[in-house]
Parts: sequence; C-alpha cells; structure tokens
Amino acid sequence: MSNPPAEIVEVLLGADRVLLATHTYPDGDALGSQLALGRVLESLGKRVFLYSEEPVGHLYDFLPGCDKLVNTLPDPGSFSCAVSVDCADSLRLGRERDRLLAIKPFIMVDHHAGHCPFGDFQWVDPGRSATGEMVYDLALALGGEIDYEAAYCLYTALVSDTGSFKYASTTAKTLAVAADLVSRGVKPAEVSGRLFDNFSFNRLHLLRLVLESLEIHSDGRVALIWATREMFTRTGTVPADTENFINYPRSVASVQVAAFIKESRDNVISVSLRSKGREVDVAAVAGEFGGGGHRNAAGFKLKGIGVEKIRAELLVRLEALLESC
Amino acid sequence: MSNPPAEIVEVLLGADRVLLATHTYPDGDALGSQLALGRVLESLGKRVFLYSEEPVGHLYDFLPGCDKLVNTLPDPGSFSCAVSVDCADSLRLGRERDRLLAIKPFIMVDHHAGHCPFGDFQWVDPGRSATGEMVYDLALALGGEIDYEAAYCLYTALVSDTGSFKYASTTAKTLAVAADLVSRGVKPAEVSGRLFDNFSFNRLHLLRLVLESLEIHSDGRVALIWATREMFTRTGTVPADTENFINYPRSVASVQVAAFIKESRDNVISVSLRSKGREVDVAAVAGEFGGGGHRNAAGFKLKGIGVEKIRAELLVRLEALLESC
Repeated sequence: MSNPPAEIVEVLLGADRVLLATHTYPDGDALGSQLALGRVLESLGKRVFLYSEEPVGHLYDFLPGCDKLVNTLPDPGSFSCAVSVDCADSLRLGRERDRLLAIKPFIMVDHHAGHCPFGDFQWVDPGRSATGEMVYDLALALGGEIDYEAAYCLYTALVSDTGSFKYASTTAKTLAVAADLVSRGVKPAEVSGRLFDNFSFNRLHLLRLVLESLEIHSDGRVALIWATREMFTRTGTVPADTENFINYPRSVASVQVAAFIKESRDNVISVSLRSKGREVDVAAVAGEFGGGGHRNAAGFKLKGIGVEKIRAELLVRLEALLESC
Repeated sequence: MSNPPAEIVEVLLGADRVLLATHTYPDGDALGSQLALGRVLESLGKRVFLYSEEPVGHLYDFLPGCDKLVNTLPDPGSFSCAVSVDCADSLRLGRERDRLLAIKPFIMVDHHAGHCPFGDFQWVDPGRSATGEMVYDLALALGGEIDYEAAYCLYTALVSDTGSFKYASTTAKTLAVAADLVSRGVKPAEVSGRLFDNFSFNRLHLLRLVLESLEIHSDGRVALIWATREMFTRTGTVPADTENFINYPRSVASVQVAAFIKESRDNVISVSLRSKGREVDVAAVAGEFGGGGHRNAAGFKLKGIGVEKIRAELLVRLEALLESC
C-alpha cells in the first residue's frame, strides 16, 4: 500500500483553481471520490470545478454535492491543475478527453490493476479497495477537512466498490477508514439503503424472468443466465437494471464459472463472466472474444452474431476451461 | 456503549473449568461468539466445555473449532462457572436450561434490546451490533489472546449480525473491531463467501417461484410474497431455504411494509414482516396475531387457519397501519 506522492500533494496545495474529473458512466467510487476530493479542496480555500459528461443517474443522485457537477468544460488554460479519480484509461475520460488532458499538470489517482498510465503525475495503487480509500489518505496528507458530506461520499465510495466489505479487495485499512468515516457522522444503514435497497417492482419481475433462464452445465460447475430484449420490453426495464444479477448463479456453492448473456439494443450482445478462486481465469476467455477484465470478473461485447451461436461457443470454451483446471 | 463489568472479568480470570452455551438454533453471532470466547479462555489456561443442544448446521460448519461442540451436559457441579453468549431469554438455552442455570456463578453476555435478565452476572449492551463485538472487548479485558481462529469466529459474528455492516446497528466501533480482526489475518471475502454464497440451484428455483407470487398493494407501499408447501416440494427445498427472501420486496424503493407468508409442515403458517424507518411498527401488527419482534422486523405463527384467511386479515391490518402513519 503506497502513500500519496509528495509531488501530488505539493501541486494541489499550490493550486488555485482545480478541475476534477472521473470516468464516464461513473459508479459510486468514481462519484464519491470526485465529490469528496472537491469538498476537501474547498476546505483548503481552492476553487473547484466538478466536470461530468452526463448528469448523475438516479442510482447516485443522493450523494451530497452532486448537483454541483457541470457537463460543459471551460477553457483548459483557466485551471491550475486537473485531477482524474478512479479512471483507469484516458479513453474513459469521455468526449472531452483531449481538452481535459490539455490542463497542466494533469494528476491521476486510481486503484485499478489494469491501469494505462496518462497525465503528468500518477498515483496508482491496486492494493486499495477503492479510489475513495486513496482520496481519504490524500485528504489527510493535504491537511484538508473531511466533514460530514465528504465522509458520506467517501463511505459510499468504499461500500460500493467492495460490495459492502465483502470483496477480496477489503483490507484492515479499508475497514479502519470506514470506522473513521462513521465516527464523523455517516450512518452505514443509510448509505447501504441508498445503494442496495434500490430495486423497482419492474426489476423484481425482470429478476424472476432471468432466473427462469438458468442453465446448469458441467455437473453444476457452470451456470448461465440470459436477459433477452423481449424480457426488458415485457417488464419495462433496461439492461442497467440487471446490475448484480450475475451474482445469483455465482453464489451457488458448486458453481465455478457463471455467465450472463444480455441482449442490448442494436443487436449488441454483452456477456459477463465470473469465476471463483485462483484457478479459473475468465479474463482469458473474455480475451478470446475480444473482451477483457480480471481473473474473476470479465466480459465482452459482440455485434451482428446470433445469441444462440455465442451461447454455444461460450459453453464449449467454459467447459474446456474447467477441464484444464 | 458499556465496558465488560469488572466482576465478570474477575470471575472468569479466577475460573478453572468454564462451560460456554448459547441459544438454540444458533446463528453466526451465537456460534462465533461462543467458539471465540472458548479459544480466548483456553489461551489463558482455562479448561473449556462448549455445549450445544444440536449439531452445527451446514451453514456454520466452516467455523474453526465447531467440531468441539458437545451435546451432552456433564454434572453442573463440575464447572467453576458458565457463560451464555447472545441468548436473550433463558428459555432459549434449550432443554438443558435448568441444569445449565444450576452452574454457579452463571454469567450472561448479550446485545439484544428485548433482553430478559437471568443468571448471576449480566452484561447486556443493546448498543452493540453483535455479541461478538462484546466478546472482543471481553477478550482484551481478560488479557487473552485473539489468535487467527478466534478472530475468524468473531469476524463471522460481526458480519452475520450486521448483514455485512449494512444494518443500523453498525457503529464506528463495529468497523474498528472488524479492522483489527482483519489485521490478525481474517480474509473478509472468505467469510462473506461462506456466509452469503451458500445458495443451491434448488434455492434459486424456489426464489423464482416466490418472486412469481409477488403482490403489490397500497400504491406500492405494501408488498407481499408467498411460499407454499407445493413450492418447497416442487423445488426440493425446505422453509429454512427462504432466509433473506423477505429482503426482495423490502428492497423496493416505494415499499414501506413487506410481508412473507410461508406454509410450513403440519399446517403451520409463519409470517415475516419488515418495515422501513421509524413510522411503521410491524411489531404491533405481529402482536395482534400473537407474535412479536422489533419495530422494523417482526413475525408470527398460526395453526389451523387457512392461508387465504390470514392473507386477507393481514392486508386489512397493514393497509390500516399505513393509513394511520
């Protein structure tokens, strides 16, 4: 685990007007880290500009300060520096990527293992459970204030990127940071309620249909579920409503590999893969289909190929993968 | 939040042969607390006897040391003292209750709000998220060793009684204890995997059927699900497999009260009720049907009355409850 680099602390302490960005389609860690760092920098008297390509979706609009996000980018020359948080690849900065990177110096704070370096100063620590954990340490190194709102955003970042402290990335440090944030007034049940009790009746109906599609192969070691366009139409849902559905087949004790095939708009088929333990590397399988990811969580997208053909090819590959373990 | 009472620490330090018990049908907090305290006392040179009426079920048989639990009780006079952990009511000590309480002195350590006092020395702290959190403090007060196995049991206790740090009972102290336990070698993902990734394919099929039963009332504020005997038979499952199913209707944003009606063996109908927030008190409704519980989580059982009749009466009561809020 690394500490905030001294030069990043120095640049930020010397800055006057700071732009903060994160990746497109931001999740709880991305937004929580961005908003918290903004608040900490403001406590140090900096002027902060929070950039986001898209408005915050309904999943995260409870985050304090998210109304301050702006989707137009002023003259890059007007900033003392920029910081992107939780963004593993500059392509994920979105359509204003080039103008964002024109802000000098450009600082990058991220915890992803498959990070592609960009910008002028980098702090990448894959040993961290969330970028929020890094922003917490950065706030302390800057001597900024972590008030209730900043603590709330950071707690949301930790909880959303660790599945409420369940994932392998959770360390003693993660829990110690969480403890400190709660001592600043954050109510764990409130954040969890916002993040996890966000089902709609339509989403429950969709879950039922998706569970109906369950296929079991290789003596219960491979499980496959489906979401077709017809299911989305019938239940009034969209592909984003399937978040975490892959965890249902994954959570069966005998399952070593779970796959979720989704039919999105425009004939795009997206496939999520999950495996358990060190032996089964689903990133390798995703790679063969032009996708990528981590050993235990990967995926790919294909266009113009029939769902049934993908399913058949995928099953052959997954069964071969298990035999080779 | 209270500290371990000095007299309890004194009795335990002076004891030679200690009996440890917990409530019948023990959960993760009960077993984790019992096993951890046993290990801590052993590190202090005490002889420990771990009593349990029933063998440990498959949900918790991963706990280190659970093979040391014994279901026959030796002569009560042979012990220096007894400790019951996580047991709110002496009736829940099980069929050996009287012989257990004959052990003198009898110490009781528990975190339940609705605690009925028993025994000679009591430490009850409803401000604690889990009895495991209290056993951790007791271990430190005793100067005992919290080794990896004890830490693993205590971490399991915390995670299972807080739904992985999601419930309102989670405090900064809970998370700080968890951080310390992880620094002693516990892997959060391993414990979570054991506790939460324990679905069977049959249980997934049952979930699908139960979701099919979803009824929505009072403009989406009341949701009701069912599990009939026919569903259990069809999927090869038992009522215990429905654990946490009530959380599906509860997790819908608009829902204020969720009810789950289960048809068990012998024409017993058991009903679980959940509500959100301070306004809606489901314990009051459960009380009207002869049951009980907490404001946000309660239930009741009835025998010899038709399912449809219970459903109709319950809906009338729940709709009236919401109107009165």
